[in-house]
Amino acid sequence: MPSTDGATGLVSPSRPASPNRSAPMTMKAIAVIPGKPDSMHLREVPRPRVDEIPGGRGVLVKVLRVGVDGTDKEINAAEYGAAPEGFDYLITGHESFGRVVEVGPNVTELAVGDYVVATVRRPGSSIYDQIGTYDMTTDDMYYERGINLRHGYLAEYYVDDPEYIVKVPPGLKEVAVLLEPTTVVEKGLAQAYEIQRRLRVWRPRKAAVMGAGTIGLLAALALRLRGLDVTVFGRTAAPYLNSDLIHDLGARYLSTVATPILDGARQHGPFDLIFEATGASSVVFESMQALAKNGVLVLSSVTGGDHMIQVPADRINLEFVLGNKVMVGTVNANREYFEMGVKDMTHAESQYPGWLERLLTHPVRGLENWKLLLETLTHARGTIKVYCEVAEDSSVTA
Amino acid sequence: MPSTDGATGLVSPSRPASPNRSAPMTMKAIAVIPGKPDSMHLREVPRPRVDEIPGGRGVLVKVLRVGVDGTDKEINAAEYGAAPEGFDYLITGHESFGRVVEVGPNVTELAVGDYVVATVRRPGSSIYDQIGTYDMTTDDMYYERGINLRHGYLAEYYVDDPEYIVKVPPGLKEVAVLLEPTTVVEKGLAQAYEIQRRLRVWRPRKAAVMGAGTIGLLAALALRLRGLDVTVFGRTAAPYLNSDLIHDLGARYLSTVATPILDGARQHGPFDLIFEATGASSVVFESMQALAKNGVLVLSSVTGGDHMIQVPADRINLEFVLGNKVMVGTVNANREYFEMGVKDMTHAESQYPGWLERLLTHPVRGLENWKLLLETLTHARGTIKVYCEVAEDSSVTA
Repeated sequence: MPSTDGATGLVSPSRPASPNRSAPMTMKAIAVIPGKPDSMHLREVPRPRVDEIPGGRGVLVKVLRVGVDGTDKEINAAEYGAAPEGFDYLITGHESFGRVVEVGPNVTELAVGDYVVATVRRPGSSIYDQIGTYDMTTDDMYYERGINLRHGYLAEYYVDDPEYIVKVPPGLKEVAVLLEPTTVVEKGLAQAYEIQRRLRVWRPRKAAVMGAGTIGLLAALALRLRGLDVTVFGRTAAPYLNSDLIHDLGARYLSTVATPILDGARQHGPFDLIFEATGASSVVFESMQALAKNGVLVLSSVTGGDHMIQVPADRINLEFVLGNKVMVGTVNANREYFEMGVKDMTHAESQYPGWLERLLTHPVRGLENWKLLLETLTHARGTIKVYCEVAEDSSVTA
Repeated sequence: MPSTDGATGLVSPSRPASPNRSAPMTMKAIAVIPGKPDSMHLREVPRPRVDEIPGGRGVLVKVLRVGVDGTDKEINAAEYGAAPEGFDYLITGHESFGRVVEVGPNVTELAVGDYVVATVRRPGSSIYDQIGTYDMTTDDMYYERGINLRHGYLAEYYVDDPEYIVKVPPGLKEVAVLLEPTTVVEKGLAQAYEIQRRLRVWRPRKAAVMGAGTIGLLAALALRLRGLDVTVFGRTAAPYLNSDLIHDLGARYLSTVATPILDGARQHGPFDLIFEATGASSVVFESMQALAKNGVLVLSSVTGGDHMIQVPADRINLEFVLGNKVMVGTVNANREYFEMGVKDMTHAESQYPGWLERLLTHPVRGLENWKLLLETLTHARGTIKVYCEVAEDSSVTA
């Protein structure tokens, strides 16, 4: 029997829970009313069926865990997000982890019992969508499960085509809810390395990560796995959990309160690669000035505000020109970055065993505890990854 | 006999001059004293010999024409430039065109009589230098003929290794002095296309060029040769020679006085590729906002000042991230971009015959007219390319 703290609904992520077989026709889901701030609620919705996907290609997945992040906050604040056509609500949740419970007759890629993570964006109509790189769409409209025009994963089940469902080995089942955030890093680094083929030879040695949140930590991990000397800049004074995690990778943590970025760059840079993951646009422009010759600055954080800042425009341009520097923005993600993420996460479990699990700081048990989930996401201190434990793995029979 | 205007020293670039065989041991050259503002002067210097280059690999070139640009102004203002070791002067001039008059016994690539243009930068020690991409050097020190630590081409002769001398077909002899500036465009576009291999499919349709000076015009040409719809933004109100040249390419000219960049982008963009060649860093930051999804902004202009400007930082970052956009700086150039330039210039002569020659607006006859050369470069109006006609082609006997 699981040991649940009744007051908080928090459970240890690895303890078993009692099986919870949902009703055949409906299921519970966490949803919002797009356009209406603070509208998150629990509701009964139709349970998806495997035959909803044409061609016998349906894969029905029982959801085990779903992570939440800043995008979910923005969706609940009605700053972003739209309901699918024909619905007035949007099921939220885009960082999924689950297990296949049923497959259509023409599915060869996945089998009942497989652990899986679903991608988020769905193709539009541009040539980039047609070749599977829907993250590079030039369409104006985005389709993203749990975010825009498509229901998400904060529910008991979802169904999709195997094209959008990535198999995860059992060895990653305790951490696979981190795969979707990991793809932010995978895509950013893959784009950077693709771009740097322009150099014919590129052996980056020093990297910086701006921001020590979930994405910053995962970026530091991926860069350490690639053998780089990594400096992570964060706001919080060390030591704290995040700086400990960074040190345990053999990377360096600098608080910008004590060491401004450009001072840190003078000591430990300049940086061949900088991964920006702060959500603060002023850091973007400081990062431009911390880049080594031929270096690449990857922008991955969304800055929805309207901040104007003063920048040394002549100097930034001159250094980009004389140093052949590159800046690239990156938005998530297509299937291949999920597949790369699986490889990096298995590499991480082998190189830094137990490290990824330490990021799972704030589990919240059960969809019915959506208020606590939102509360933890919005107000808890020391969070790295807040997630909903939708169901226990033991509830699935392969 | 040439028809020279004695008062101005200006000659038509295509008229023959009397042969001028220089003395065997010395020659005339235009030089500056680095560190001393306004020190440009004519001097007698040792005439280079083919055996100065080791291994029997010397190529002695008689200089026919040398273009001048903003860098030459900066060098004369002592804002930039250093003398070679052992010298207190620097022979200036980096946009060369000449003809081979003597080769060492182990030169197979070039023969006496060949028309040639020399590259500018020389290798340092980094891995990029070692593989021939010395324009991507990560060294702190740059070696550039006519600019920094190496003598330039504003002289009667120069000698070099064939590695740094690019053959030009006789069909380009009237315009080949434009090859060095063309390499700015060639490298910028080559880097952009290399970078865009990250997209697997890239079919850019709309391009913008910021600036309608020599580089801007050559960028518009190269982009039209690649089939793009091109909009050039300049400050001057049309019509004038530069806007006429742009129209004659089938491109569009917009004066930013009448049409600010972002308005122009709304009408004719967004732009898959933007080539920035204004020398004004504020334009760089405006250009960032005129870029299409997956677009690439090429920065090629040097901004030596200290301007600070106010920018919409959140918006620029957000658009780069959500649109997967790229910005790349580019500094010139290695041999391959000269070879690409030859191809584009021959293509241009076939597609737009006579167009390149119209850029040669301000010839100045003879090294001894260096004052007029500098005066024309600094003060003349309506200049596109100012250059010194060092010697007539007919003075060379193959």
